[in-house]
Amino acid sequence: MIYLGIDLGGTKISGALFHESNSVLIRETVLLEGREGREVGAQIAKICKTLLLNGGVEDDVRKCIGICVPGIAYSKTGNVWCPNIPGWENYPLRDEITAQIPNSKVTVESDRTAYILGEVSMGAAKGCNNAIFVSVGTGIGAGILIDGRVLHGASDIVGATGWMALKPMYKKEWDACGCFESHASGTGIAMQAALELKKLAKAGKSGVSVLQMLEPESVSSRDVFEAYDKGDPVAKKILDTAIEMWGMAAANLVSLFNPEMVIFGGGIFGPATKFIDAIYREAQKWAQPVAIKQCRFVATELPNDAGLYGAGSIAILSCMNNLNNK
Amino acid sequence: MIYLGIDLGGTKISGALFHESNSVLIRETVLLEGREGREVGAQIAKICKTLLLNGGVEDDVRKCIGICVPGIAYSKTGNVWCPNIPGWENYPLRDEITAQIPNSKVTVESDRTAYILGEVSMGAAKGCNNAIFVSVGTGIGAGILIDGRVLHGASDIVGATGWMALKPMYKKEWDACGCFESHASGTGIAMQAALELKKLAKAGKSGVSVLQMLEPESVSSRDVFEAYDKGDPVAKKILDTAIEMWGMAAANLVSLFNPEMVIFGGGIFGPATKFIDAIYREAQKWAQPVAIKQCRFVATELPNDAGLYGAGSIAILSCMNNLNNK
Repeated sequence: MIYLGIDLGGTKISGALFHESNSVLIRETVLLEGREGREVGAQIAKICKTLLLNGGVEDDVRKCIGICVPGIAYSKTGNVWCPNIPGWENYPLRDEITAQIPNSKVTVESDRTAYILGEVSMGAAKGCNNAIFVSVGTGIGAGILIDGRVLHGASDIVGATGWMALKPMYKKEWDACGCFESHASGTGIAMQAALELKKLAKAGKSGVSVLQMLEPESVSSRDVFEAYDKGDPVAKKILDTAIEMWGMAAANLVSLFNPEMVIFGGGIFGPATKFIDAIYREAQKWAQPVAIKQCRFVATELPNDAGLYGAGSIAILSCMNNLNNK
Repeated sequence: MIYLGIDLGGTKISGALFHESNSVLIRETVLLEGREGREVGAQIAKICKTLLLNGGVEDDVRKCIGICVPGIAYSKTGNVWCPNIPGWENYPLRDEITAQIPNSKVTVESDRTAYILGEVSMGAAKGCNNAIFVSVGTGIGAGILIDGRVLHGASDIVGATGWMALKPMYKKEWDACGCFESHASGTGIAMQAALELKKLAKAGKSGVSVLQMLEPESVSSRDVFEAYDKGDPVAKKILDTAIEMWGMAAANLVSLFNPEMVIFGGGIFGPATKFIDAIYREAQKWAQPVAIKQCRFVATELPNDAGLYGAGSIAILSCMNNLNNK
């Protein structure tokens, strides 16, 4: 049996042949370079063929292929919805790849599912049966493994963590991406900074924050993290709120799912890794007390490769019919 | 194969022989009458024996027994923790019953797990693969079925919903049972009423609420529901907050688990069943918009028997090794 993992990212496709221990044998990367629709499918098939050729794998050998996509993978159909790839509103990725690779079983999963499987197979959560990967970047999502299986839900959108309700009264401004995400994702942190800077401008207060040298709409989450390190009061206010909400959200994951470990990753962790202890202390206030005592909060050990290792794990698990998908 | 379900409640033990379709063949109930420790185990074994005798079941026939307990069932050991039964801090219920009933396979689960399995087999959630039972009584817990399996978690305390963090800043008064539960369980509603009445007394305001005729500490959640029906402003304030928090909590369950259905039951629903539409409208504001559109909120269809039918379902599923426990 041959195991192939493919990680489709925002700008590139990474692929690898895997040993059944989940270690990488051969690896390839190609850039997406603005490809759209079926061209992206063709590019994924091409990287599969290159890996099989370089690995000396014959056509008549059985292949299990796991693919991780930045969006939603519908487990009944194998179709995918990926908002950043034009033409992938309901794209038949599983069927396209199955048709092009002889003797293959193709399984498609969302990136957050791949991330938790990557961490469990080769990263921070090795050997865990109950662990959650919280991915904080432009948005916030979670990959969830409970009782040894990844969760999918009724329509494959389990773990929509960014929508967590944490702060009444409800505000209209959260409509676009949810209460938690509007305060604690990369986009949310930048949005809160812009709101604060506009308030200061309206009140005629200058010289309060280094961020006031920037146009409010141009402030990035990275700018806020840098200002925080210089002791800036606006950055402090925004990130203290983010820490409180990361803590509350993580507490809710702990109380509801009873995991052994919560792993933080994604574009923001990086710079927010230093806050993990503060997030745990906040979560301790809120969570079910036995469950939080038994749970560790850690940073990803695979900041660049959780998706690829996860895709390999998907290939291996699918082959054992052990993936809990339909 | 013979299927036996036992529901251990606060004051009585109900038991039944089940057909494999989950319908009840014969049924028995005995009162607990203050029994403690091993006496309760003996009483459970006795009701099993009575049912087997009345059903004409011979000793050499294989029996699957499901037991639902008001507490935590540890799936590795079969031991249970039930705070309302003296001596059941870590009681070996599975081993005790197995030893007393020849040819038996005994499986113990928490009441919330039984409730969701009861609703899925014979109640509101028939045929669902993804559904959550929210039990609101003295406390708040949830039984969770995702991808066709009930969840257990690292130490069998999945679904500790009462601890959900919903309202910053964190308050010391939530330490005992969690933020959500302190506002929206039966105990929590009574506690909030007592706080409001004390505030009114301190401010010297009389005649504001019919509840002021009662001692603050003696007000029950039922008093608050009755006062609400008469348009009482204090009861309205407390239950409007509870509705907001039930809505936020249900929204979080929908965003995180992507269920087809959330079922409300327990001592409070009853009187709160009329609020389910209001709870759904509140949840719609907060939840992941696709997931909430696909999810229905309903009241239990088994207000008295979810535990017993669930215990029957546990017996049947355990026999098929389909219960996701260790």
